[in-house]
Amino acid sequence: MIRKPTPGYSIILRVEIRNKIGMFAKIAQAISKAGGDLSTIDIVEVKKDVIIREITVNARDEEHEKEICDALKSLEGVRLLDVIDKTFQVHKKGKIGVYNKISLKDRAELSRVYTPGVARVSKHIFAHPEDVYEYTVKSSTVGVITDGSAVLGLGDIGAEASLPVMEGKCMLFKEFGGIDAFPIAISTKTVDEFVFVVKQISSVFGGINLEDISAPRCFEIETRLREELNIPVFHDDQHGTAIVVLAALINVKRLLREDITQWKVVISGAGAAGIAITKTLYRYGFKNILVCDSKGILNKERTDLNPYKREVAEITNPENLKGSLKDAIKGANIFIGVSAPDVLKKEDIQAMSEPRVVFALSNPDPEISPEVALPLVRIMATGRSDYPNQINNVLAFPGLFKGLLQVRAKGVHEDVFLAAAKAIAEVIKEEELSEDYIVPSIFDKRVVETVSKVVAEKTKELGLARL
Amino acid sequence: MIRKPTPGYSIILRVEIRNKIGMFAKIAQAISKAGGDLSTIDIVEVKKDVIIREITVNARDEEHEKEICDALKSLEGVRLLDVIDKTFQVHKKGKIGVYNKISLKDRAELSRVYTPGVARVSKHIFAHPEDVYEYTVKSSTVGVITDGSAVLGLGDIGAEASLPVMEGKCMLFKEFGGIDAFPIAISTKTVDEFVFVVKQISSVFGGINLEDISAPRCFEIETRLREELNIPVFHDDQHGTAIVVLAALINVKRLLREDITQWKVVISGAGAAGIAITKTLYRYGFKNILVCDSKGILNKERTDLNPYKREVAEITNPENLKGSLKDAIKGANIFIGVSAPDVLKKEDIQAMSEPRVVFALSNPDPEISPEVALPLVRIMATGRSDYPNQINNVLAFPGLFKGLLQVRAKGVHEDVFLAAAKAIAEVIKEEELSEDYIVPSIFDKRVVETVSKVVAEKTKELGLARL
Repeated sequence: MIRKPTPGYSIILRVEIRNKIGMFAKIAQAISKAGGDLSTIDIVEVKKDVIIREITVNARDEEHEKEICDALKSLEGVRLLDVIDKTFQVHKKGKIGVYNKISLKDRAELSRVYTPGVARVSKHIFAHPEDVYEYTVKSSTVGVITDGSAVLGLGDIGAEASLPVMEGKCMLFKEFGGIDAFPIAISTKTVDEFVFVVKQISSVFGGINLEDISAPRCFEIETRLREELNIPVFHDDQHGTAIVVLAALINVKRLLREDITQWKVVISGAGAAGIAITKTLYRYGFKNILVCDSKGILNKERTDLNPYKREVAEITNPENLKGSLKDAIKGANIFIGVSAPDVLKKEDIQAMSEPRVVFALSNPDPEISPEVALPLVRIMATGRSDYPNQINNVLAFPGLFKGLLQVRAKGVHEDVFLAAAKAIAEVIKEEELSEDYIVPSIFDKRVVETVSKVVAEKTKELGLARL
Repeated sequence: MIRKPTPGYSIILRVEIRNKIGMFAKIAQAISKAGGDLSTIDIVEVKKDVIIREITVNARDEEHEKEICDALKSLEGVRLLDVIDKTFQVHKKGKIGVYNKISLKDRAELSRVYTPGVARVSKHIFAHPEDVYEYTVKSSTVGVITDGSAVLGLGDIGAEASLPVMEGKCMLFKEFGGIDAFPIAISTKTVDEFVFVVKQISSVFGGINLEDISAPRCFEIETRLREELNIPVFHDDQHGTAIVVLAALINVKRLLREDITQWKVVISGAGAAGIAITKTLYRYGFKNILVCDSKGILNKERTDLNPYKREVAEITNPENLKGSLKDAIKGANIFIGVSAPDVLKKEDIQAMSEPRVVFALSNPDPEISPEVALPLVRIMATGRSDYPNQINNVLAFPGLFKGLLQVRAKGVHEDVFLAAAKAIAEVIKEEELSEDYIVPSIFDKRVVETVSKVVAEKTKELGLARL
């Protein structure tokens, strides 16, 4: 898999350049030769003999950043003054803040938002507990809660190191859903303690978004919190992914006009995302799903399965097949990878039946390089933004929580996920669909509107709404 | 104690008034006769025969609000269309929100604040744990944490009903200290569980402000959290009050040029505030303090004292006096009330030695009505904003936490409180001091600046600063 330069690795190079014709061209050439992607150029200062510029360059990774710096250092007439990492720069002192909805410029305002006025509001909520939604931030606030045990591709990095990811998630909630989200990273790794802590602090939240919790603990945590809390609890790594995958498949069906629920589906990965996708597809109506973990196809004879995988084995693999991913994929039309880079080879794709649909969602490096797979498949999707059909959870969770908060939901249900998936799919009109356009853009404003509306309705229909 | 109309009880009366000369005067008269305080008048609509106005009126309490409405209803040519409670209005959907510090308008920004860019920042913090302050909101975020057990004068109203107060506190943090504070109301009432939960969620906070937790549990909770966490933990009901009381006393000393530490001090109330004030005054150098709870003077013979009151009995009451508050106050120069309304009578004040200093801080109704006490005392302070010398915690906690966050404090210490008190006092120049001006205004911008600076320095000096 060839990595391309990305703004996730962009650096600002502050360079002093001798004032001589052709110098900038030399620099641009050196960056390009080193594989860097020159993004923006600013002039900082012009002196008598030199000019100081800030050049923003996208690199592939940290190693590559260093190579680009070295390439500049070796140029005559160029002095590298400073290297600023743009990613670290935007993280300085954190990415979110708290603001006051009303100003506090005089004593009159103070006496309403705090003592003595506030006492009446508290008394009112004490007498009418449901009105906590009416008069507090619970109406619009979601807890983004993790234990830091399965953060991105980094594994168990603990509570504090997971905070930048949780803050980033909170930003997405705000930007895409207008929701006030706050990051909480809990230190314990035991299920009982985690559940206890979340329950104890839940009063301020109208919903809980669980994030980056390792499997299989994430399943028990979610199940127990759903039982014990009267607000929706949603593990995004599971259901966010499942919703968007199903949305994409619904559009495969609309585009190809085939009853794809009869097709054979192979899912690689039986962690949080894999198991949730399986259950959601099963509920939607897919009849023939094979799920593989690192040891091969899940089947009823395997004795090494945890209860969650065992449950999956019950509802999938109707012929009770045994074997590896390679065996599983033979004759399948749909491959969904939520596992690891490069688990598929060219010949595995060739062994699939046509039309072939491949969602290689391992991030940043997919299960098979799109360059290899694309010529062989009808439709391809990845988790990346630099290929068409990006399967991105941000299509689901902001609208989902917006809808749940609107109706002050007591909980959430798999049928709400199906409705959300359909809503995401149908943002794209049938005549607009194409092999390269089966999921809407994350910047398409219609997504959150449509999803929130449908989620609110479905939640009411299921009797899970307070409003 | 006569209650006055306050903006904490202000209502907006939407009235339809017949278009006739003298009608508004009639309305104003009716409101005034009912004891209401007319604040603002707006025109909403002018029709052919009638005019619709919104009249904002401050009342004394809810009962009084109704009386004012009734007074208007009885007027001919006036129709009361709607009554909006301004306090409830400003609470609608909560008073604070979360904002993004940078915009997320394109994929480049997204890829820096979230995947893939954010992974590098998380990895960095994993390798350099101290840098959690550099790259997350921990640097500026305080948890405002309660169990809802001693909320204002309302007692144990539970987690959800306490949220409006916690949100109000967060607003004060923002407005006065520029600090991002988030409200957490924990459901449990056991000390072990509370301490456990706060510890578990502490990673995102640079400091913890404990709020409205009942005594004596609040002492154990604070002590244990201070031992077990590496961030400052501050119970505002204790130390916020103690700092501002000491600041006011320091200015009594500066104004009267007397060594007031030799004076006899009587403290009424041995809850969170009373015990903290006692310890702070003792540390400052006061030699002769008597503390009274509802059963009388704390002394070494009493067998009904909890460990915290017993500790207070050890460091106070040098003559080991027994008796009631009435006995205690005889011959005292300073009375500090953090107990209940009307525990003092006129003759109790008369029994004090001159010059008499009375801080009657029970809120909203002081230990003795200022109208009664003022003629008899040299200096009086209350917790209210409608008399001079308001002892308000907002003079302390925003600057205190600002200073602590600036140096990434590992903890906080009683000596920091003394330094903060001195800083608050010295905001007022000696030549500006008067009997009616011993504490700065809460809107005096110099307070937070001075306090934060002094707190940062003292924290460094004590070896409690990371920076």
